[in-house]
Amino acid sequence: MAENILIIGGGPAGLHSATLLAELGVNVSLVERESYLGGNPKKFKYKFLFPDMQPADDVIGELIRKAESNANIKVYYSSEISDFKENGKKFDAAIKSVAGSETKTFDSVVVATGFEHFDPARDAKYSYQLFDDVIDIKDLERMMGENNFVRPSNGLPPRNVAFILCVGSRDRHIGNQYCSRVCCTVSVKQAIELREHFPDCEVYIFYMDIRTYGFFEDLYWQAMEEYDVQIVKGRIAEITSGPGNTVVCKGEDTLLRGPFEIPFDMVVLASGMEGGAQSPEMAKKIGIELDEHGFLKPQNITLSPFKSNKDGVFLAGACTGPKAISDSIVEAGAAAMNAYIYAVKNR
Amino acid sequence: MAENILIIGGGPAGLHSATLLAELGVNVSLVERESYLGGNPKKFKYKFLFPDMQPADDVIGELIRKAESNANIKVYYSSEISDFKENGKKFDAAIKSVAGSETKTFDSVVVATGFEHFDPARDAKYSYQLFDDVIDIKDLERMMGENNFVRPSNGLPPRNVAFILCVGSRDRHIGNQYCSRVCCTVSVKQAIELREHFPDCEVYIFYMDIRTYGFFEDLYWQAMEEYDVQIVKGRIAEITSGPGNTVVCKGEDTLLRGPFEIPFDMVVLASGMEGGAQSPEMAKKIGIELDEHGFLKPQNITLSPFKSNKDGVFLAGACTGPKAISDSIVEAGAAAMNAYIYAVKNR
Repeated sequence: MAENILIIGGGPAGLHSATLLAELGVNVSLVERESYLGGNPKKFKYKFLFPDMQPADDVIGELIRKAESNANIKVYYSSEISDFKENGKKFDAAIKSVAGSETKTFDSVVVATGFEHFDPARDAKYSYQLFDDVIDIKDLERMMGENNFVRPSNGLPPRNVAFILCVGSRDRHIGNQYCSRVCCTVSVKQAIELREHFPDCEVYIFYMDIRTYGFFEDLYWQAMEEYDVQIVKGRIAEITSGPGNTVVCKGEDTLLRGPFEIPFDMVVLASGMEGGAQSPEMAKKIGIELDEHGFLKPQNITLSPFKSNKDGVFLAGACTGPKAISDSIVEAGAAAMNAYIYAVKNR
Repeated sequence: MAENILIIGGGPAGLHSATLLAELGVNVSLVERESYLGGNPKKFKYKFLFPDMQPADDVIGELIRKAESNANIKVYYSSEISDFKENGKKFDAAIKSVAGSETKTFDSVVVATGFEHFDPARDAKYSYQLFDDVIDIKDLERMMGENNFVRPSNGLPPRNVAFILCVGSRDRHIGNQYCSRVCCTVSVKQAIELREHFPDCEVYIFYMDIRTYGFFEDLYWQAMEEYDVQIVKGRIAEITSGPGNTVVCKGEDTLLRGPFEIPFDMVVLASGMEGGAQSPEMAKKIGIELDEHGFLKPQNITLSPFKSNKDGVFLAGACTGPKAISDSIVEAGAAAMNAYIYAVKNR
């Protein structure tokens, strides 16, 4: 008889884990809290993925299509785990949906509860929600996905745009000491897209460190050399309203060693990543550990970043920390492999 | 009958892939060019792994022990693939070792041919090999593994030490435009270790950007706050000999906007990562693609970073680009899962 494996979360990591396991004949139950699959990339309508500008719909669409078309995967939409118990080496889980509650026994579990975008309204100095033309990278991504590149306040093309990095990341004031890994590269990518769309628009990036690590570095060279994006080491202290419907970035240029006040038509905040909203509740229900940042805690960050502290329960994707989609997909493979081995061994 | 899977390379990625597959009953042939397993971490005697200072021997030792003790894994030491042919959906490979040549048919293949440390002697401005006290991070790692923290030139504790980041990385002059991902974090880790060992030794890090991405950031805060490591944004133009058996770093402080010349007792170059020495030959033999940097090229960097352009041949670890050991281990799981699925489907 085939193994039964539970996957919690239908974002990139959960979808990919589900498909791999289903290809081995495993009966997969995929539980998703939303009424649709695809996680944050779908919810916030990502348009192009860094570093190679693949259309997000191609990548996420393919993950969804593969999961939805596989007869071995039962997707529970708008659902949650209402009860979870160990049963020897197996697990009894109740899945609650509008259709009612169903209890099944699973051989192993993959938790892929994802992340939340940091809400920049939590840091008053950025004046997000106060000014229409202060948006963040997820807003801009959604706008560009709708082919809308113009200023929210007046519908006109921006004459200049500032990206501000490390919003809600590397910031103890806000409680997030860690770096969110992807926001530098997302910002550089979006800066290129803006310059491509509006060749006359000046684009600035204010940074502490530009962390386009590994091969993402190619985008950084491209932004500077081909697209003439202005990369300025500096911290923003405040965003205020300026003359002629502009927003003013006040800060200090760390390289030129002086204060600046520059009016911009649009400011884009590079909001970071935080632990998934459902992760704490899920951790409690399943009996797995949460780290101090609200992410799920791997058993060993080098040897087994895809294992929880509970045998038979595995972790995949951004639920364990900020991560690119490619990293989530790779981790989904590792978690699926380990969940399958656990299931086969305790058959 | 069990599947037969070939794994090329016995570093962290190859070892972990082998063990996972063997746990599913697969007959694994693990081909390693050296006479020992463990790859570069073993060859260069890494001591502690970032970010949590796990002893490298615990991690690498466990990977080796698991692979060597599994009866389903046959390890070919000091061996190479001397011939490789497609055979329908399978592969015929000849494994050449001192014991002779053996040809087997494999259902799928995982290539894990690793990376090389950049040789800093290739960039004359760093005077590596010219001065005993100019070493690189792999040299220091090996020295610390031998509990040797002193100056190579005279065996005395260094009074001050400079780390120079991005040696052989982000450097078109040398031909490597990409960032090597791990050298920032390795340097910060080693700076902490030096300060811990010699509390009176001043430690500087000269950087372009500090790329302690994600949770590696914790080490950066720790280096600055607990260990008082001096982090200086600046580029080094030249290393020369100085008064009293010192080596002088000449460069420009990009923040203070001025040139500097500082004599140091020891200089540590953060050498980056390059494609594995055997990767080009292996790529040609197997018929898979190499990228412009000498790394093996994945089919799709977001959807399948663990797949080569050839069906049935998968990629794991630093052979596809600079990567932390934890990332290699995760990718090994994904590659193993996909190699297993391919093998089962074409059984």
